[in-house]
Amino acid sequence: MEFFAKAHDHLRAILKEQNLDGALVTDLANVRRLCGFTGSNGALLITHSDALFLTDSRYTTQALAETSDVEVREGGGKKLPFGALINDLCLERVGYEGQNLNCAAFRSLKEKAKSVELCDLGDAVSKIRQLKGPQEIEKMLAASGLAEEALKEAIRLFKPGVTELEIAAEFQIAVIRRGGKLSFDVIVAGGPNAAMPHAMPGKRKFAEGDLVVVDFGVLLDGYCSDQTVTIPVGRVSDNFLEVYEVVKRAQDAAISAAVPGATLGAVDSAARDVIAAAGFGDYFGHATGHGLGLEVHELPVVAPKASEVVKEGMVFTVEPGIYIPGEVGVRLEDVVYINSDGNELLSTLNKDFGSI
Amino acid sequence: MEFFAKAHDHLRAILKEQNLDGALVTDLANVRRLCGFTGSNGALLITHSDALFLTDSRYTTQALAETSDVEVREGGGKKLPFGALINDLCLERVGYEGQNLNCAAFRSLKEKAKSVELCDLGDAVSKIRQLKGPQEIEKMLAASGLAEEALKEAIRLFKPGVTELEIAAEFQIAVIRRGGKLSFDVIVAGGPNAAMPHAMPGKRKFAEGDLVVVDFGVLLDGYCSDQTVTIPVGRVSDNFLEVYEVVKRAQDAAISAAVPGATLGAVDSAARDVIAAAGFGDYFGHATGHGLGLEVHELPVVAPKASEVVKEGMVFTVEPGIYIPGEVGVRLEDVVYINSDGNELLSTLNKDFGSI
Repeated sequence: MEFFAKAHDHLRAILKEQNLDGALVTDLANVRRLCGFTGSNGALLITHSDALFLTDSRYTTQALAETSDVEVREGGGKKLPFGALINDLCLERVGYEGQNLNCAAFRSLKEKAKSVELCDLGDAVSKIRQLKGPQEIEKMLAASGLAEEALKEAIRLFKPGVTELEIAAEFQIAVIRRGGKLSFDVIVAGGPNAAMPHAMPGKRKFAEGDLVVVDFGVLLDGYCSDQTVTIPVGRVSDNFLEVYEVVKRAQDAAISAAVPGATLGAVDSAARDVIAAAGFGDYFGHATGHGLGLEVHELPVVAPKASEVVKEGMVFTVEPGIYIPGEVGVRLEDVVYINSDGNELLSTLNKDFGSI
Repeated sequence: MEFFAKAHDHLRAILKEQNLDGALVTDLANVRRLCGFTGSNGALLITHSDALFLTDSRYTTQALAETSDVEVREGGGKKLPFGALINDLCLERVGYEGQNLNCAAFRSLKEKAKSVELCDLGDAVSKIRQLKGPQEIEKMLAASGLAEEALKEAIRLFKPGVTELEIAAEFQIAVIRRGGKLSFDVIVAGGPNAAMPHAMPGKRKFAEGDLVVVDFGVLLDGYCSDQTVTIPVGRVSDNFLEVYEVVKRAQDAAISAAVPGATLGAVDSAARDVIAAAGFGDYFGHATGHGLGLEVHELPVVAPKASEVVKEGMVFTVEPGIYIPGEVGVRLEDVVYINSDGNELLSTLNKDFGSI
């Protein structure tokens, strides 16, 4: 399957660049991207000539059915014997994922493969996942579509007196009935609660004049969606409307800036500058966006000064917000998929004020 | 709050034993047990005189509200500056959780605190969680009660023609409506699917004569439940009934063996011996049980030859099973809470054949 083979080529180019004989891939999202395995215990050793997948006996049958372009080996117990394997293959310099491998596993590897030089690959393997293939986009569109249907069902209940928790429960139930799972705990935050970017749904009842932030995502066939809408309850004040319109303009500006060749920092600035110019600069504390795919937060990071360049195939969120403590919060989030001359959105809900 | 202070005393006794000046606790379940923090980024440094909790700016307010018996400090970015803190406190030997801390974080710690000797604590901190206090048992009973109510609601749908996925969805929805979350993906596995201990619910329809394994759990207020029932669909064959009765006797034997002073290996053997004596020894491949609490799998492990001794306050599952590939599977799981002269069950569903 070309999808995996291309990723192996990419990883082998990194090996060559860093003068490595192989890479031990332990991050499960990276493992899935490189061979298709979806279980909870398995890792890959990719060398210039081999692609070996090790798992324990619970997962052998599943691995044989799910994986492509790798040789599946059963490693015995839950601790996978990569040290012995590295020795058998006479590898001298091997890369590992230092942000994933824990100290105890590293030490055990080092003990078994004493003469091997182990080199931290940093986030090099995770970066392979930044550029999505068409089959990944299809899955992300399906996840996003399901999430939008579920949201529409949940917000039918939307009116003064209903609680955040009730909307959150309805959304979850609508997702489950459609065969999905949540990709993260849904945020439903109304009135002053909306000023907390990570608020958990509570018992507060919506009141006329509230703005309600709903940040929701679905996991379907391994891929995540992520989107945020801000919904008015009845008639809101002109001040709140202004906050909304500023965030909308900031989001539009960042989406327009998300084109191949721009830096990710420039995408962030496009949103941040609009918010600052409107006098709300102190109320937008988080990054403008993050990558999305097998995980709900992955590379790249769309943050101030990020020097990495936007490339065709990248998928990331654009989600500026304004949060005025004790008063109001607005966040609008869509997902852009970078194409050859700009981007298209994987999310379809209109973000104009009051359109939901 | 005595609950946290006692755990700190326990940890300080370990420090003394291992001649350490402090312990860096990074495992989030252990952090929660030692100070009450429920967020996704925070860690503790416990010394003989201090208990310092570090988190990033997103969680400062939450940490101040949630934690007790620790001093909360904001660490700036997401990478918590424990190296600098260890230097400031002039600690010489500090323990860390090697099964939790990743290589990159360890290296960064080592760079900042160059002269400090870092010692892997193994699972010493996690072991503190093995012995539950009454307030933990209360929460586990609440989680288990909610799970049982939701299961009863879901299995009203139970009849030939209904699919595994439909029952799984109904269970989830019933949990959400009651304000809980799943502590793990529910298993509903009928007919030959029940022979796979980790089967995921699928589109197979229940048929007359099936045995259906339902393994279900709820997370409520931080604590997990975990229970398994095996439900007959209509009239089942005498062979299947025999398999069920053997598992029931095995479970009864292991529950009776779960008393203070016995080894965990003896609890495992009590179940395993019954199954082997009935001629099904080859069809019971997994451990008899595992600890349960803030995590759905925690210490202790109830497995063959486990030499650790059962102690008052321990909470673990007793879940023997028989899995005959392509034919049938039965698993029965309850949770025992060890008291001074034996144990009580945290689960209440009757496991007699056909009682559900």
